[in-house]
Amino acid sequence: MYVKIAATKFVLEWITENLASLYGVEDVVYTGKTKYQKVDIIKTSEFGLALLLDGLLQSAEVDEFVYHESLVHPAMIAHPNPKRVLIVGGGEGATAREVERYKSVEEVQMVDLDGELIEIVKKYLPWSQEGFKDPRLKLVIAEGRSYLSSQPDGYYDVIIMDATDPAEDSLAIQLYTKEFYELAYRKLSENGLIVTHSAPLLMKTRLVLSVLETMKSVFPKTGLYAVYIKSLEAMWSFVVGSKGPLPSELSGEEVDRRLRERGVKGLKFYSGALHEAVHRLTDIYLGVFREKGEVFTDSKFAKTLREAAEE
Amino acid sequence: MYVKIAATKFVLEWITENLASLYGVEDVVYTGKTKYQKVDIIKTSEFGLALLLDGLLQSAEVDEFVYHESLVHPAMIAHPNPKRVLIVGGGEGATAREVERYKSVEEVQMVDLDGELIEIVKKYLPWSQEGFKDPRLKLVIAEGRSYLSSQPDGYYDVIIMDATDPAEDSLAIQLYTKEFYELAYRKLSENGLIVTHSAPLLMKTRLVLSVLETMKSVFPKTGLYAVYIKSLEAMWSFVVGSKGPLPSELSGEEVDRRLRERGVKGLKFYSGALHEAVHRLTDIYLGVFREKGEVFTDSKFAKTLREAAEE
Amino acid sequence: MYVKIAATKFVLEWITENLASLYGVEDVVYTGKTKYQKVDIIKTSEFGLALLLDGLLQSAEVDEFVYHESLVHPAMIAHPNPKRVLIVGGGEGATAREVERYKSVEEVQMVDLDGELIEIVKKYLPWSQEGFKDPRLKLVIAEGRSYLSSQPDGYYDVIIMDATDPAEDSLAIQLYTKEFYELAYRKLSENGLIVTHSAPLLMKTRLVLSVLETMKSVFPKTGLYAVYIKSLEAMWSFVVGSKGPLPSELSGEEVDRRLRERGVKGLKFYSGALHEAVHRLTDIYLGVFREKGEVFTDSKFAKTLREAAEE
Amino acid sequence: MYVKIAATKFVLEWITENLASLYGVEDVVYTGKTKYQKVDIIKTSEFGLALLLDGLLQSAEVDEFVYHESLVHPAMIAHPNPKRVLIVGGGEGATAREVERYKSVEEVQMVDLDGELIEIVKKYLPWSQEGFKDPRLKLVIAEGRSYLSSQPDGYYDVIIMDATDPAEDSLAIQLYTKEFYELAYRKLSENGLIVTHSAPLLMKTRLVLSVLETMKSVFPKTGLYAVYIKSLEAMWSFVVGSKGPLPSELSGEEVDRRLRERGVKGLKFYSGALHEAVHRLTDIYLGVFREKGEVFTDSKFAKTLREAAEE
Repeated sequence: MYVKIAATKFVLEWITENLASLYGVEDVVYTGKTKYQKVDIIKTSEFGLALLLDGLLQSAEVDEFVYHESLVHPAMIAHPNPKRVLIVGGGEGATAREVERYKSVEEVQMVDLDGELIEIVKKYLPWSQEGFKDPRLKLVIAEGRSYLSSQPDGYYDVIIMDATDPAEDSLAIQLYTKEFYELAYRKLSENGLIVTHSAPLLMKTRLVLSVLETMKSVFPKTGLYAVYIKSLEAMWSFVVGSKGPLPSELSGEEVDRRLRERGVKGLKFYSGALHEAVHRLTDIYLGVFREKGEVFTDSKFAKTLREAAEE
Repeated sequence: MYVKIAATKFVLEWITENLASLYGVEDVVYTGKTKYQKVDIIKTSEFGLALLLDGLLQSAEVDEFVYHESLVHPAMIAHPNPKRVLIVGGGEGATAREVERYKSVEEVQMVDLDGELIEIVKKYLPWSQEGFKDPRLKLVIAEGRSYLSSQPDGYYDVIIMDATDPAEDSLAIQLYTKEFYELAYRKLSENGLIVTHSAPLLMKTRLVLSVLETMKSVFPKTGLYAVYIKSLEAMWSFVVGSKGPLPSELSGEEVDRRLRERGVKGLKFYSGALHEAVHRLTDIYLGVFREKGEVFTDSKFAKTLREAAEE
Repeated sequence: MYVKIAATKFVLEWITENLASLYGVEDVVYTGKTKYQKVDIIKTSEFGLALLLDGLLQSAEVDEFVYHESLVHPAMIAHPNPKRVLIVGGGEGATAREVERYKSVEEVQMVDLDGELIEIVKKYLPWSQEGFKDPRLKLVIAEGRSYLSSQPDGYYDVIIMDATDPAEDSLAIQLYTKEFYELAYRKLSENGLIVTHSAPLLMKTRLVLSVLETMKSVFPKTGLYAVYIKSLEAMWSFVVGSKGPLPSELSGEEVDRRLRERGVKGLKFYSGALHEAVHRLTDIYLGVFREKGEVFTDSKFAKTLREAAEE
Repeated sequence: MYVKIAATKFVLEWITENLASLYGVEDVVYTGKTKYQKVDIIKTSEFGLALLLDGLLQSAEVDEFVYHESLVHPAMIAHPNPKRVLIVGGGEGATAREVERYKSVEEVQMVDLDGELIEIVKKYLPWSQEGFKDPRLKLVIAEGRSYLSSQPDGYYDVIIMDATDPAEDSLAIQLYTKEFYELAYRKLSENGLIVTHSAPLLMKTRLVLSVLETMKSVFPKTGLYAVYIKSLEAMWSFVVGSKGPLPSELSGEEVDRRLRERGVKGLKFYSGALHEAVHRLTDIYLGVFREKGEVFTDSKFAKTLREAAEE
C-alpha cells in the first residue's frame, strides 16, 4: 500500500516502554544543552513551534495554553483567595502568565533549576515572554525541594508543580514522593492547595494513580482530572491535594462566577463548562480503566536518587 | 540518555502524513489477506488483542467497547423508537452487539464487503462473537452503497456507518460523500438518523469538519461528538445526520432514562453523564481548534474512484 | 531493557517497502522545496552534514567521496582516453569534481533539471563547490534524456548517470530503460562507456539486476560492482555498459598505473586494490543471493510516466 | 509524497545511539523469556526466519551462513592443524556446524549460559539442528569465562567467541577485556588462535578498534576483518588474536588449498577469493575511517559488572 508521508525528519518520543510517537519536524530553531538538560526548540509539522527537554515535548504553539490553563486554573479557582503562589519548575514562563491573571495574587515565586533554559525560552518561545514581565514575579534559580524547605511554614496559598514528568527511574521523582508532599503541606496556608501535572491518564494509569495515592497519604482532600492535549497526544493528568476546598467541588457556574470576580481575562480554553466536563470524564475513564496506585516514598527511590546524586 | 524499552516488535501506524505511532507487539495471532484487505490480529503490549486492517488498528481488547458504544448509542437513543437498523461495515460484530441491546429493534441488517474477514474475526476475536448470535441479525456480504441503493426508500430508522476510515485517496471515501448521504437520506424513515465514525478530531480537524459539512449539505440537523479512545490514541469523531432529533438535544438524565426504558443492559462505558460531557467537550475543542471543512462530492474524488475501479 | 539513545530528532528513510532507517539529526541547515523536489540539508549525528532530496540521503560529509569516487573512476579508468564526458544529474557537483581530476578530459557537460538545487548545494555543501570551478565544466539546466537526444551521435566518451534512484513508480525510471540506454549507446563514441548508480545490491537485488539486464539488452559488454557506503547503509550498486573495455577487465595494478599516467590526484578511497576487491566481492555476493532481473522498457512504465506527466 | 510500505509490523533495532533500523515482521514464531534473555523467533519480510535475543537480530535464514562461515573459517584455516576447539556462546548451533566441517577436529566444546535458548532454537531454527548432531560436540551449560578458567592451560587450538555483542554497558563486556584475553591466551596451545565477532566496522569503529587494541595488548599477532552481512545491515567485524599465524597471512590460493586438504565441504560463502577480498577491503576502509581504540580492562567496567552482579 502507499502511505502519504510529508515530513522527512521526525522526533521519536517514547510515551511508555511499549509506545512511541513519531512526529514531523520542519526545522530546528535551537538545539543545545544546558547544565541540566538537552534543549530542542523545533518547528513541528503538527504542533507548530515546540519545546523539547531531553527529547520530551513540553508544550507547543498550537495548544500550550490548553496545558497551562488546565494546570493553573482549577487550583487557583478552588482556593478562596489566593495571594501567594509558588511555581516549582515552569521555566517556560507560561505557568506564571496564567497565575498572574489573578488580581488577588500578590506574589508569584517561581523556582526553577535551570537558569540557562529560561534565557533560551525567553529568546525563542513567543509565549514564554509575557509571564516574565509581571513585577509580582520573583524568579529563583534553585532546586525546588531544597528551596521550598527553606521557606516559612504556612506561607503559600497555592503551589503549582510544573516540573519534569514523574518517572520511577528519574531524579525528578523526588518531587512526587510522600516526603515532598509532607513538606508542601507544611508550607501551605490554611486553605492551601498543591497541584501537579503528572502523566497520560490512560497510558500510565498506574503511575498517575500512584501520584494520587501519594497525595492522599498526606492531604485530607485530593482530586484528579485529565485534559486531552493535542501536542501531548494524550489525556494529560493533574493531581490536586488540598487543605480546604477541591476544584471538583465547584460547579461550572461557580467556576465562571469566580473567574469573573477575580478579573481573570484572556483565557482561551478553560471555563466552567470545561471544568465540569473534564472532571466528569476523568471519573468515567477511571471507572473503566481500573488500576491501583501505590504510595511513593523517598526510600522506594533511594537507589535512583543515590545514583543520580553520584553523577 | 537511557530509554526503557520493553517491546522488540512494533506496529508503525500513520495517523497523519506527519505523525505516526509505534506500539509494541507481543505476538501475532493471525496474519493474512482477504480478497479486500490485509488482516492482522495481534497481541499488543498496551491494548491487548487487536484487529488491524491494512495496517490500521480497528479496535482492541482493552477498549473496543468504548468505540462501539460511542458509535452506536447516541444515535440509537436519540431516535424515538428504532426498529430497523442498518450497519454498513462492522464486520467485527461488536457494532451489531450494541444495536442488539435494544429490545425495540426488530431487524438488524449488516452489510459488509468482506465475508472472509468475518470468518476470521469470529474465530479469533472473543468480542466479535456475541453480536453474530442474535436471530434479528441479517448478514449480507455486499458493497454497502450498492446494497443500500437496492433497498426500499424510508426503510431504516438508524443507519450506522462502521466502514473503513475516510481518506481522500481511498476508495472508502465513496461512503462519505454528499451523494452517499443523499442516498442514505432517502432510505431513512421519518425520524431516521445516520451516524458515521470519521477520524481523530484534533489531528484531522479539517477532514472531520468536511464529513460534517457534507452531512450538513443533506440533512436538516447534524451533530458531531468525539470520544477519547485509548487504543486509537485519539479523540475519535462521530458525525450524525438526522431527519428528527439529534443526540445533542438530550440531557444526560434523558439518556439514562431512555437506556433504562429500552432495556439496554451491559454497557461498560456509555451513560448519560458520558453523553453530556463528550458533547460539551467536543464543542469546546472545536471552538479552540477552528478549521473549515468542505462538502465532499463524488466528482471531487472521481479520479480516486476511477483508479480504484481500474485495479 | 534500557536503550542508550542520544538523538531526539531523526530522519526516517525507507530503503525498501519493508525496511527503513532512523538516523539522528542534530540540526537543520536548510529546508525547502525547489520546483522539482524537497531539499533538506541537515547535520546528522552519524554522517555529518548530509543532503536529502525528497527525504532520501544523497550523500554525506563523512563519505561523499566514497560514493563519488566509486561512481566515476571505474568507467573513466576503463576508457582508453576519455575526453568528452556527460554527467546526467550530479547537481551536487562532486561527480564533476571527480571527472575533472583527469587531465585528458577536455569537456565535462553536466545536465541537471534542478537549477535551484545547484544554487542551494553550492551555498551549503562545502564539498560541492570545487567541482563547479573548473572551466572545462559546461552546466546545462535541462531534463537529461531530452538533452541527450539533442546531442550529436558518437559524441561522448563516458556518460555518468548520477540521477534520482531507480524506482518502478518514479518518473526517474525513464533514465533506466532500454530506450534510454539505446539513446546513450548512439551518443557514445567508439569505446564509450555509460555507468549508472542504482540501488543497494542485497536489499534490492532484483531491481539492480534489472538495471543490469536492461543494460545487457543494449550494450555488448556490461558490468556490475557494489561498494559499501556507510552513509547509505548499504552496498550500493553501479552498473556499466561499454562499447569497448569494461572496468572489471582491469587488474588492480593496471588501475593504479592508469591513475598515475592520467594524473589523477587527491583520491581518498578509490585505488587498484579497492577496484579489484569490490569487483570480486560483488561477484561472490551475486553468487550467493541469486535473483533474476528483467529488461525495463518505457512501455512497462507507461502508466507511471503518463501519471507523472499529468501532474 | 507516497511511500510504498508493505509491512505493518516491524522490529525496531538500535544499531548505535543515533541509528536504528525498522524491518518488517510477517509473523511471530516464538516469543518468550529464558532465565537470561528475551527470545524472539520471527518471520521477517527481508531476511526470512530470524532469531532475536533481547531485541537484537543474531542471525537470519537468508544469510546465517555468511555470518557463521565468516566467524569460523579464517581462524580455523589459519591454524596449522586445529584439533580442539572451544566455542563460547554459539547457542544457535551453526558455529559448531562450521567447526565440524574440519575432519582434523577431534573435540568441539561449546559453552553457553542459556540451556533454555538451545532447546528453543533446536525446535524452531532449521539451521541450528545440524550442528548439535555431531558426536565430537560437547555441550556445556555454563558461564564462558568461568568455564574457560577451569580448563587446563594450553588445551585449545582455536577459541571462537560467539557471545553477546560487546557494549560498554552490558555484562557481556567481560568477554572482551584484557583479562579475558589473558585467560584465553593461557588456555590456547602453541599456535592457538582466538577469534571474536564484535560490531559493525563503520558504525562502531571505535568499539571495534578497542576490541582490537585489547587483543593487541595480549596477543603477539592480531587481525581484523569485516564482512557485509545483509541481515545485520552492516560490515560486521571479526577480531583475531594468534600465538602463531594469522588469517591475513594466507593468500586466497592457500585458503582454497587448505579447505580442500582439510575436507571442508558444503560452504556457501567462504572461499579463498572472499578471504582475500574482505581482508583487503577492511584495510582500505580502516584507512579511510580512522579512529583510535583503547584497551578494555575489567576495572574500566567494574561498575557495569558490579551492577549486573547485583541484579
